[in-house]
Amino acid sequence: MTVPAIQDTYPPAFSHCYGCGASNPSGHRLRSFLEGTETLARFMPDAKYSGGVPEHVYGGLIASLLDCHGTASAAAFCRASQEEVGVSPSHHPRFVTASLKVDFKRPTPIGVELVLRGRLRSLEGRKAWLDLTLTAGGHICAVAEMLAIRLVESH
Amino acid sequence: MTVPAIQDTYPPAFSHCYGCGASNPSGHRLRSFLEGTETLARFMPDAKYSGGVPEHVYGGLIASLLDCHGTASAAAFCRASQEEVGVSPSHHPRFVTASLKVDFKRPTPIGVELVLRGRLRSLEGRKAWLDLTLTAGGHICAVAEMLAIRLVESH
Repeated sequence: MTVPAIQDTYPPAFSHCYGCGASNPSGHRLRSFLEGTETLARFMPDAKYSGGVPEHVYGGLIASLLDCHGTASAAAFCRASQEEVGVSPSHHPRFVTASLKVDFKRPTPIGVELVLRGRLRSLEGRKAWLDLTLTAGGHICAVAEMLAIRLVESH
Repeated sequence: MTVPAIQDTYPPAFSHCYGCGASNPSGHRLRSFLEGTETLARFMPDAKYSGGVPEHVYGGLIASLLDCHGTASAAAFCRASQEEVGVSPSHHPRFVTASLKVDFKRPTPIGVELVLRGRLRSLEGRKAWLDLTLTAGGHICAVAEMLAIRLVESH
């Protein structure tokens, strides 16, 4: 049995994201999971997603993956905090990005599985602050900070 | 006669970007232009690039467009500064992103042409700091700050 990803249990009305939506047939369908105190996603980019030089991933995809993994991470950490107080919603809450800062540390190679990780810095009301990394072959290629906000409609 | 975009005159070896490379047949092919003291690009996203809800653009595309427009803006402002001192290189220099911070101000609608603008904050050696905006229907949907660095190979 396949373990559902965080994005698989978004409310259906909010599942159309090109980056990670289960209801978007054209998109990347990034799938993120909560593992203990961090979140994890793996993604193998197609060769067409090159940056200026063909050997590297273009920055837009890196930002996209971090963005989708970040909002999923916010959803997972929020849900975990709800469960700690005995609330078990049927869907993960849907967060949207208010701010995303990506620092590109080194070129991200094409042809290597990318690993995204997320950690919660703080959660306050509808706001979640997250720290994210993207690694390839064990090397950190990009780090990001995100402020995500929970949609009122989704809880 | 079609006016060449900034990206059309990147060095050929650095023209494969999925977001804006003239040599990438699969990509978005964003085209940016210098107009006086600012840069301008226009882009109409396909409906498949939706965010969580189908009516809005997903954040990853917004970050991608700002990223590509930002590095093109850095190239144009750098070249303009070179021309001011009598240097006229055959290609635009190729910049890569060191850091990109995107603040999402409001949902970006699908089905409306997006307008990207860039302004140079400062240029120091190989580093360019830029301020960027993305508007739809006259409304600012996202703003960004970027630090871009000129590749040594490209000048």
